[in-house]
Amino acid sequence: MPEKSNINAANKLVTACVVLIGDEVLSGRTRDANLGYIAKHLNQIGVQVREARVIPDIEQVIVDTINEVRTRYDYVFTTGGIGPTHDDITADSIAKAFGVGIGYHPQAMATLEMHYQETGGEFTEARKRMARIPEGASLIANPLSKAPGFQIGNVFVMAGVPMVMQVMMDSLTDRLEGGATMQSRTVSAQIGEGTIAERLGALQAQFPEVGIGSYPYYRGKTFGTSVVMRGTDVALLERVAAEAEALIRGFGAEPVSGDPA
Amino acid sequence: MPEKSNINAANKLVTACVVLIGDEVLSGRTRDANLGYIAKHLNQIGVQVREARVIPDIEQVIVDTINEVRTRYDYVFTTGGIGPTHDDITADSIAKAFGVGIGYHPQAMATLEMHYQETGGEFTEARKRMARIPEGASLIANPLSKAPGFQIGNVFVMAGVPMVMQVMMDSLTDRLEGGATMQSRTVSAQIGEGTIAERLGALQAQFPEVGIGSYPYYRGKTFGTSVVMRGTDVALLERVAAEAEALIRGFGAEPVSGDPA
Repeated sequence: MPEKSNINAANKLVTACVVLIGDEVLSGRTRDANLGYIAKHLNQIGVQVREARVIPDIEQVIVDTINEVRTRYDYVFTTGGIGPTHDDITADSIAKAFGVGIGYHPQAMATLEMHYQETGGEFTEARKRMARIPEGASLIANPLSKAPGFQIGNVFVMAGVPMVMQVMMDSLTDRLEGGATMQSRTVSAQIGEGTIAERLGALQAQFPEVGIGSYPYYRGKTFGTSVVMRGTDVALLERVAAEAEALIRGFGAEPVSGDPA
Repeated sequence: MPEKSNINAANKLVTACVVLIGDEVLSGRTRDANLGYIAKHLNQIGVQVREARVIPDIEQVIVDTINEVRTRYDYVFTTGGIGPTHDDITADSIAKAFGVGIGYHPQAMATLEMHYQETGGEFTEARKRMARIPEGASLIANPLSKAPGFQIGNVFVMAGVPMVMQVMMDSLTDRLEGGATMQSRTVSAQIGEGTIAERLGALQAQFPEVGIGSYPYYRGKTFGTSVVMRGTDVALLERVAAEAEALIRGFGAEPVSGDPA
């Protein structure tokens, strides 16, 4: 966990790993819609996603993965596996990873019981599973479908359904201590990567504080390159972006700011 | 690597890990479009993707990740980082992971040289980078943009651009020894997961050879559950799917075969 003394330390790199739990993404049945949202949201508050993993609903895999990444990164965010069915094993696996017990959380039970009273649904044993929370964890509220996520240590356990995950993620800002916020500038042009590659490499060498990425794109019959500059110093980013534009013009192409139209 | 003696062994589980290399997916700039294609394609030839990782363009991270997963899974498939620019460091990193040298591959050089002669582009030093292949690797042809991928040991290095990756992936079938092919049946209904959860758990306990997954869905104002059955025995899958349909009808809902309409 980041030290308290590092709150608002603009130059500190605060890192995160995202763990997407679920057979459905691994099998190709479902295309993940969560990583991008989490990455963008975290970056806005100064947390950089440095790795993501997609793992199956297998207890030992979840335990081993969580225990590996929670020591390596400042924060870990998981999605998936906290519903009422037999294949929802994330909460039990996280408890096992932390070596703590798990039981019905009184507040989670009360919230779910009221929800099913109001909606006329039965508060089945299966639905009570959604109130099973590892000991010592704090809840992450779910205003949409009520079944909560939870935080234990530096691990934040969220739902897999994107709209539920998003409202959970948005609610976590106060619990996270961000560091440097990564800004980016994009310059695109209808020019081949290979044409600008050497000059771009020289530009990268000239400005090591800025990460320069080059991404080819194909749009029907046209193709080109998007050059993305990332860094924490906005003035420097603007300068490097201007250099990239000049570089592209030097090859007779017309750069546009942002992604290709 | 799977033993030769296991070719066509219908019950052998052959596993793979997919490693998506690139800052653009981690930052949320680009939504991955490769994992799903790779997972579905591999499953068709009897290879199960058991894990996926998204990692940044950082040499030591690539080296460590590849060396971890290549011993843990039968096959490893990477995408991204084999273009001409300074941030394309996958080939060098893979060479380092295997402890081998890297140099210009004669066939790759010839193919690229001819390509740029034909298209009138200059075969720049940067573009020659795309012919740098680790020693002992075999090429993976790229009929679209010519810059090849490569195979070294059980690691297959492919492009990040989806249409190039797909043609590379499709060409690998003869090099892969598949095992059991996972089949699936899906049954969907407008019913809450929590309603069917207990009966579904009992069904899973009754048929341990079939993996039963439960996935809630939300479509505007309607919601429901898709139950996905996976296994290698088609007759058994049909039987469990029929049981799942009966189970859903028992709660007064009407199941449909496949995803919700």
